[in-house]
Amino acid sequence: MVPHAIKALTFDVFGTVVDWRSSVARAIDDFSRRKGLAIDAAVFADAWRDLYDPAMDDVRAGRRPWINLDDLHRESLLKLLSRYGVSGMSEAEIDDLNRAWHRLDPWPDVVAGLGRLKRKFILATLSNGNVALMVNMAKRAGLPWDVILGAEVARHYKPQPETYLRTAAFLALEPQQCMMVAAHPGDLDVAARCGFATAYVPRPLEYGPHAPQERKSERRYDAVATDFLDLASQFGC
Amino acid sequence: MVPHAIKALTFDVFGTVVDWRSSVARAIDDFSRRKGLAIDAAVFADAWRDLYDPAMDDVRAGRRPWINLDDLHRESLLKLLSRYGVSGMSEAEIDDLNRAWHRLDPWPDVVAGLGRLKRKFILATLSNGNVALMVNMAKRAGLPWDVILGAEVARHYKPQPETYLRTAAFLALEPQQCMMVAAHPGDLDVAARCGFATAYVPRPLEYGPHAPQERKSERRYDAVATDFLDLASQFGC
Repeated sequence: MVPHAIKALTFDVFGTVVDWRSSVARAIDDFSRRKGLAIDAAVFADAWRDLYDPAMDDVRAGRRPWINLDDLHRESLLKLLSRYGVSGMSEAEIDDLNRAWHRLDPWPDVVAGLGRLKRKFILATLSNGNVALMVNMAKRAGLPWDVILGAEVARHYKPQPETYLRTAAFLALEPQQCMMVAAHPGDLDVAARCGFATAYVPRPLEYGPHAPQERKSERRYDAVATDFLDLASQFGC
Repeated sequence: MVPHAIKALTFDVFGTVVDWRSSVARAIDDFSRRKGLAIDAAVFADAWRDLYDPAMDDVRAGRRPWINLDDLHRESLLKLLSRYGVSGMSEAEIDDLNRAWHRLDPWPDVVAGLGRLKRKFILATLSNGNVALMVNMAKRAGLPWDVILGAEVARHYKPQPETYLRTAAFLALEPQQCMMVAAHPGDLDVAARCGFATAYVPRPLEYGPHAPQERKSERRYDAVATDFLDLASQFGC
């Protein structure tokens, strides 16, 4: 049962809500075929994702001014294309491929689960993805967010505490009135240190069927659910 | 017919989407009765609204740092309560009365009209209301926004051009891909100067049945509709 003080559920998105890896790999595979290349799409997708955290680190550390995730993704993409020896793409082609991150498919339980959770809670994104990315993804996939918050409006990337605290502040809620929902223990641990309640929804297929599973955090969560439908049932939605 | 380049409709909210005057007056009337006072609720609502623009002017002019609309409303409310000789209210009572602005009713066409427009466009708020106010209002009234933008995330109050331009930027759209929907010619005129398309939806009852009607702007709009259902029909939604 959910503590009755909770007013908003704040969601990690990449991995928790959407299957970024299969979706990005699909886009890379299409691109690779169209160009007559022989790129291993899943390897490319993982490499793209791997460049994401170090790219944000410069922003987190104040070594460079704010830059949103679309622009960071594009920088990483240019590096990867160069590494793969792909050249001669137009700016429009690069932009379109970069927008693969706007076209991510949700896990199968997500749309129905969010629809039920929305009856009782404010549903907010608390992702490092920028606003346009989140809006376009939601529009395509039918994700019924009440509000798009997180890194771009907080001007801080997770796991910086400001990302969580400013999200709660935008909602005019105390952190204790917010519950972070994520598939990643590290995200939940920082949220908990900020005062948020936590719901752990593991997504064992995030890194593919053969990936090692994420190490469990030692922290106890306020809720653990197999998917969003289970979470909705636990919360009486 | 809507220009096919338009991707997002951005909405003024107070007056255009919701009937703030009747809703606030109702809250004042309830409060007045509970307290055994004899406040003319519509006069109080108008006076509260009248304090709103000068309060924002200090922020617009940089004479004071950013402060959101909930806090500006609360300052205005305290002034008015003092002017009406009301004292002895608890902080919680003041907060609850101030949140009358979170509990505004939409005009009768709004929920159905937005539902239809949402099929074809991104629906974004572009209001001076802060995020929590917009979210709570939407949740109560069933307004199906895709994203809450506007003053608080742009850190500028309308009619400053930054409010419009940053809203488009958050959506990763050119101003020309956005259409401002408002009942107020002044709002539409600034939006047009920023490059937005414009849709004028007059709300002749905004200031009550006997109020003088807003002077028409000399600018021509891209669309003029009697309400949101008419707008949806004109746009083929």
